[in-house]
Amino acid sequence: MSERNRPVPRVGMVGGGQLARMTHQAAIPLDIDFRVLAGSTSDSAALVCGDVQLGDDRGLADLLTFAKSCDIVTFDHEHVPEPVLREVEAAGAVVRPSRDALRYAQDKVRMRTRAAELSAPSPRWRAVTSIGHVESFGAEVGWPVVLKAASGGYDGKGVWMADSVEQARTVLDRAVATETPMMVEERVAFRRELAVQVARSPYGQVAAYPVVETVQSGGICHEVIAPAPGLDEERATHAQQLAIELAHALGVTGMLAVELFETGDGVVVNELAMRPHNSGHWTIDGARTSQFEQHLRAVLDLPLGSPRATAPYTVMANVLGGEDPGVFDRYVHVMARDPELKTHFYGKQVRPGRKIGHVTVQGDDHNELLERARTAAAYLKGDAK
Amino acid sequence: MSERNRPVPRVGMVGGGQLARMTHQAAIPLDIDFRVLAGSTSDSAALVCGDVQLGDDRGLADLLTFAKSCDIVTFDHEHVPEPVLREVEAAGAVVRPSRDALRYAQDKVRMRTRAAELSAPSPRWRAVTSIGHVESFGAEVGWPVVLKAASGGYDGKGVWMADSVEQARTVLDRAVATETPMMVEERVAFRRELAVQVARSPYGQVAAYPVVETVQSGGICHEVIAPAPGLDEERATHAQQLAIELAHALGVTGMLAVELFETGDGVVVNELAMRPHNSGHWTIDGARTSQFEQHLRAVLDLPLGSPRATAPYTVMANVLGGEDPGVFDRYVHVMARDPELKTHFYGKQVRPGRKIGHVTVQGDDHNELLERARTAAAYLKGDAK
Repeated sequence: MSERNRPVPRVGMVGGGQLARMTHQAAIPLDIDFRVLAGSTSDSAALVCGDVQLGDDRGLADLLTFAKSCDIVTFDHEHVPEPVLREVEAAGAVVRPSRDALRYAQDKVRMRTRAAELSAPSPRWRAVTSIGHVESFGAEVGWPVVLKAASGGYDGKGVWMADSVEQARTVLDRAVATETPMMVEERVAFRRELAVQVARSPYGQVAAYPVVETVQSGGICHEVIAPAPGLDEERATHAQQLAIELAHALGVTGMLAVELFETGDGVVVNELAMRPHNSGHWTIDGARTSQFEQHLRAVLDLPLGSPRATAPYTVMANVLGGEDPGVFDRYVHVMARDPELKTHFYGKQVRPGRKIGHVTVQGDDHNELLERARTAAAYLKGDAK
Repeated sequence: MSERNRPVPRVGMVGGGQLARMTHQAAIPLDIDFRVLAGSTSDSAALVCGDVQLGDDRGLADLLTFAKSCDIVTFDHEHVPEPVLREVEAAGAVVRPSRDALRYAQDKVRMRTRAAELSAPSPRWRAVTSIGHVESFGAEVGWPVVLKAASGGYDGKGVWMADSVEQARTVLDRAVATETPMMVEERVAFRRELAVQVARSPYGQVAAYPVVETVQSGGICHEVIAPAPGLDEERATHAQQLAIELAHALGVTGMLAVELFETGDGVVVNELAMRPHNSGHWTIDGARTSQFEQHLRAVLDLPLGSPRATAPYTVMANVLGGEDPGVFDRYVHVMARDPELKTHFYGKQVRPGRKIGHVTVQGDDHNELLERARTAAAYLKGDAK
């Protein structure tokens, strides 16, 4: 920093995954010093970022060292334990989102409790420690029910559907064995899944992105259509307002993603994430300000950028790894077939089912776009010819 | 590279300026290994790129070492001397654009000679070694005339307007003293300046960007309006075809920028550049494929991306350094004033008149966009309140 003659702040992101990689890209034009705390030189962000600290991105010692070198600390993931965050904040680091906010993204029981206080539309739920709790809950709301680990889950991990007491018992026994706090939720009969992202700065400025439709499979987001086709305007505004209220009430700084179920009556809060989120990857190519730039602006308390979509529709599809690791050979064909397609690869080793990248397309007809994005993603995985 | 299990090519860019910095950004989503040969750790690209070789970006020894570590060598600037390029190619490096092509961008006499062979519309010109040559040329085409150093010029450096034999003599005496080969050109009575960019791959695929209007001052590009407002469609197509023909005829691989004068009759070739170019910075925010991504695709012989503009107009303004280096303080106000504005800073120390970044805006009304971009650039320079 001494080589520059202006006070550029340094943002440190904890975790070296694809979110940090894409935030690094966004930091370049803003000319913000950006560092990453990564576990390995082969981490997605560590492969491209010029300023990497290697270390344990969940451990106190490395986090303290890292925080000392940064003006602002933020996160690629939500897995830093609360006691570690407490120590980092106590040492004087500026952590955004703060521990106070992050705990609602880390602990689903806390989140559901707070959402109820705020009258945010939510599924019925209960914290459970015995099969008896699940049984009575199932009797009350009807089977199947959804069992969730209260913390530590992502991409469908830590979520189990149970059709019966017997199935619930198997899940719960395993949870008890690993001392995982558990909760149960009603299974919401939803039409489709939506997501809405807002950015909030410490100053209190907010910016809400268009509500998108997310297509999930096996708990993993596969496709995003932005904006959600045919969504009632009033309902879209309501969803944005709900996300803004949650951001304010939970004290979020940075990006907040609210995953929603759309039912016949309205929307129901499913999950929260306080970081850039897969449901917002479309914004890199499809919005005036990407979620990664917006996250940086928000955590730095800079004025937020326009979240406006730049085309009638943008469709994103995740690229998952397949059996054949030869992605690069296939991607030449995808480029030749669809010159309008944007490909984003994360530099990850290919493993079956692993998110290794995403593609986006823009245009007027969301069905045609979805077909193009799906075709490209399937081809890159090695599933299609 | 051994940490990845697929054959990702490594592209090395010679020079660590802002073009390399923005190419690094473009390499990330493509997941191309990207290295830079930079003179200093504080070079624009070296500040952000994860893979930097420090060295002399015009010297043989460092270039040979650098080339050995890369699959493809390309350039941030055109200042590597031809004999050095010859040695690098002789050592087996794949250099794109090749020395054969680059010499037309490095040597204006060669370029004008070849353009004449190709019947490309050009100003009248002559290579000059004495004031007598300039005097007879001026008598023939009329004064003022334009004196140019045949090589080494950029951003208005190496170009002098001469109103009279006396003025020409001063320039020529200085050139003779520094052994600079010189040429003289007629001053074209142009309406405005245009530029057109094309990408060409070794396979021979080409992609032409919309023709843009460039607003120059003191030999430096200040603003770009994409596409050029009110440009006759036939003339635009002719300009694109001219650039494509030049790219093929000169054997360009990568981006080619052709700077043009628009006259009452048509267009006249002014200058060529074989790299990403200031007249194409608008493509980062304003085209489906940025010139930086396109340059990478072209030099790697990958299928080219769509050069389509994503809005009716995109306007770019360069941000120049002013007297006060406190750009970061000012940029907060620019962000607050215009949330739709995209800012791109190059990490450079502020010096008066130095290009330190650019801004872009998109919309329907190019006059309003130009006003917004100008206001932001002036404010960032410190000239406006």
